[in-house]
Amino acid sequence: MLAVVTVKVRDRRGLLQDASAALRAAGANILASLGYAGDGVARLVFIAESPRDPRELAAALEHALRGDEAEVRAGEPGPEAAEALAGLVAEKPGLLSVLEAYLAPADILDIILRLPEGERRRLYRFLSPETLAGILDAGDEAVAREAAGSVGPAVLARALQLLDPDEAVDVIQSLDPRTAKAVLSLLPGRARDEAARLLRYPPDSAGGVMTTSVPMLREDQTVQEALRAIGQGDYDIKDTIVVLDDYGRLRGLVDVGRLLASRPSERLGGLVARPRVTVPPSADREEAARLMLRYGINRLPVVDGEGRFLGLIAMEDVAYVLAEEAAEDISKLGGAGGPERYLTARVRDLVASRLPWLLLVYAVGSITATILRRHEDLIERAALVAAFIPLVMGTGGNVGSQASSVILRALALGEISESSRRDVVLVMLKELASAAAIGAALAAAGFALAIAISGDLRVAVAVSATLGATVVIADLVGALLPIAARLVGVDPASVSAPLVTTIMDVLVALVYVSVAARLVLPA
Amino acid sequence: MLAVVTVKVRDRRGLLQDASAALRAAGANILASLGYAGDGVARLVFIAESPRDPRELAAALEHALRGDEAEVRAGEPGPEAAEALAGLVAEKPGLLSVLEAYLAPADILDIILRLPEGERRRLYRFLSPETLAGILDAGDEAVAREAAGSVGPAVLARALQLLDPDEAVDVIQSLDPRTAKAVLSLLPGRARDEAARLLRYPPDSAGGVMTTSVPMLREDQTVQEALRAIGQGDYDIKDTIVVLDDYGRLRGLVDVGRLLASRPSERLGGLVARPRVTVPPSADREEAARLMLRYGINRLPVVDGEGRFLGLIAMEDVAYVLAEEAAEDISKLGGAGGPERYLTARVRDLVASRLPWLLLVYAVGSITATILRRHEDLIERAALVAAFIPLVMGTGGNVGSQASSVILRALALGEISESSRRDVVLVMLKELASAAAIGAALAAAGFALAIAISGDLRVAVAVSATLGATVVIADLVGALLPIAARLVGVDPASVSAPLVTTIMDVLVALVYVSVAARLVLPA
Repeated sequence: MLAVVTVKVRDRRGLLQDASAALRAAGANILASLGYAGDGVARLVFIAESPRDPRELAAALEHALRGDEAEVRAGEPGPEAAEALAGLVAEKPGLLSVLEAYLAPADILDIILRLPEGERRRLYRFLSPETLAGILDAGDEAVAREAAGSVGPAVLARALQLLDPDEAVDVIQSLDPRTAKAVLSLLPGRARDEAARLLRYPPDSAGGVMTTSVPMLREDQTVQEALRAIGQGDYDIKDTIVVLDDYGRLRGLVDVGRLLASRPSERLGGLVARPRVTVPPSADREEAARLMLRYGINRLPVVDGEGRFLGLIAMEDVAYVLAEEAAEDISKLGGAGGPERYLTARVRDLVASRLPWLLLVYAVGSITATILRRHEDLIERAALVAAFIPLVMGTGGNVGSQASSVILRALALGEISESSRRDVVLVMLKELASAAAIGAALAAAGFALAIAISGDLRVAVAVSATLGATVVIADLVGALLPIAARLVGVDPASVSAPLVTTIMDVLVALVYVSVAARLVLPA
Repeated sequence: MLAVVTVKVRDRRGLLQDASAALRAAGANILASLGYAGDGVARLVFIAESPRDPRELAAALEHALRGDEAEVRAGEPGPEAAEALAGLVAEKPGLLSVLEAYLAPADILDIILRLPEGERRRLYRFLSPETLAGILDAGDEAVAREAAGSVGPAVLARALQLLDPDEAVDVIQSLDPRTAKAVLSLLPGRARDEAARLLRYPPDSAGGVMTTSVPMLREDQTVQEALRAIGQGDYDIKDTIVVLDDYGRLRGLVDVGRLLASRPSERLGGLVARPRVTVPPSADREEAARLMLRYGINRLPVVDGEGRFLGLIAMEDVAYVLAEEAAEDISKLGGAGGPERYLTARVRDLVASRLPWLLLVYAVGSITATILRRHEDLIERAALVAAFIPLVMGTGGNVGSQASSVILRALALGEISESSRRDVVLVMLKELASAAAIGAALAAAGFALAIAISGDLRVAVAVSATLGATVVIADLVGALLPIAARLVGVDPASVSAPLVTTIMDVLVALVYVSVAARLVLPA
């Protein structure tokens, strides 16, 4: 396990030796040690391999330097170590090139992201093209834009050439148009043509996630030629070759296991497996991912309308797509807008992504307030009725968002289809049955609760009746919202908890005050 | 594109020929046609390849049979076609074996799942071992249990042998202990030992998702031997070989591209790449997935405390893990309990997974009701105060769940770490700043709204002040809950919208009635 140990300590002679010895005694194999001193204070960084928890190394070192007012921190590469390293790197940017030898681009990025924008922009310029390429490829548009803007087009172009064409294009697509154009013009001829071709596909389409870096051969070529192609080209996909006809149309795929099990002189035409499914480049990348998971396809061919091969979607890349989409769904479900890297997001942007949602909720909230205001007389005469408003409304919102999430999940897994009438009817019936059971239970519990708190039978009946009706309405509306969203072509994850809760508030307010008015007012 | 066309039509001579001719004229290449008749009604099924949308085939066929009262349905394999095929298969289970030749296990499962339990149990017995294996491997415990219980241990054991060892073990783990034991005893010796070894790891651990089906060689073996191993073994992983020392300790990995680029006589010891990261078998599978995505690792070695190689986690399998976890998170965030296949879930189980949540919400709701009941005099004297209860509470809940989802997302992506003090402080400061801005905006909007609806300045001030305070409290509590959950070792996705909303309800009720009492009551 790799450990990063940082020490801030009163400077003295022999410090580095003492510290190194202490770490070695604790079982660490020191790969690199860096240090600098000023104003009587020394700062040391050790990168070490250790079979033990980094915290044990820190404890051992602290003990060894106990007379020196040492502040020791240790952690694996990642957010923990990044925190300790960020300050050092800001003071001595040159340290980055040493760290690059041991840390991955993701670890270096973690360090940089813990610094203010001005520092970040300065540090990007100290990175090797390899690390820069890794950081650009980390899948964050805001970071890619910032890094690209800091290093300038020439350095950027050099880094992009280290990425696969589809990765490079993802980065280019996140840049502002002027920088993108400048970088494109600096790419060497073939890379530029490939990028220009891939740039036609939106990032969230099958064309946008496919890779074109795969060996392509013809049916009359041999196993030996195919194996040589895999070994000689620097391909993204190395376990599969694509077999095309003379017009570039897809004949099928052959995996490397099949190649290695065949005679070297065998023609590829006899080995190809025709793919069960292909997708057009315009297909949604989530839909492509769903097909691959459903059918257990690790390499999904993308073909155009004439059956010509355009690229392969690799399951490895699908994993990134799924992780991204899952994170996006979390934000959407919480009603907190689109993706943003939290650490570097400006407060302004965080607020801007959340405020519209809250104001929409407000608009609906004012309807509830108006409904209740119309029943001012009811509440004046029976203030107890008001005490249970939060309970009935909360129940409505919660039942609604439960039902939404259950259906959302079934839709996401492709278990049910919004376009199947039978599935929709089944959902309605099942939810009706669930809601009836839940409604009966909650109405009974609500009655007991309301009697205990209010001591008023009529209020308790009103609360109980409202709860029963609320559960049924909330459940059905909550269940149907994601289906309706799909039918009108909206991402069902936009059916967020805040939306469901707010819709329920209005419905429940209407039900509660009418029931209560009827039951309580005559008194 | 594959299309499934089903027809229910008045029986007559030459029907099949006419229908086939119509489909061919519409450009379909018919792969299989099935049919049977009774009581003067014929049912036909066509499986066809067609470059056009299945619905166009249906329209063409409907037109050709327009005199015959034909009901035609067409769709791609999947939920749509499943709906049409389910009825047919229930009547003629023998059709399944024809369908199996053209449809994938996932498509067959979709058909079966659209039938009642008794039918389902009967149909599993008609499946080929290949289809049964595919269905067992589809990743759904309830389905695996049902199918396993229907076919009996002997058939089950035959199907499991068609799966990779780690997949077979996932299935065995979902069975009841008696069936599991019976199946294990029926597996051939080597498969049984392997299964017994893998059964020690929980399904959500690194050991539970790793595959052991990968070529393993020693350092002194040659490239030629490695390539032969890939070609001859039926391995799960074919693009990577694992190199071990004499004690089974991991030396490193070699990918097939590297092998094919090397001389056949070269020793593997000179080619191995040492992995940047390894994980112990007890590591959480989500943590392993996070590491692989972070560092772009497609094959992550799992090793024990002595460095002995146990298996590889493949990025392809990580995609399934991510899809499953994302679906689970959707349920959890909605407060709707664990995973369940919706189509086959009993209403009883759906209710059971949701009710506890709602009753917890109730317990908290009764606190709110008690708080409001104590302020009965306030509400009696100023019923208008009650009109804004839903607005202030709704805002609290929504701001809280927004803040939770933003932080949840940053934690899920590994952008921030709950164990970094600096990150936690940064989150607090950033959320405080966001909350101040959002609070100011909503307080102003709330004031205007309350004046417009109530016309009462004191009520408007109370509403506005409560909103401002609510936003700040709700935001900080919402943001800190997922961090706190991680710190105490709870899945932060359990911090569901219902939980956040309900906690906020109590806090907001307290703030609102105290503020309102102070401002409004003196009148």
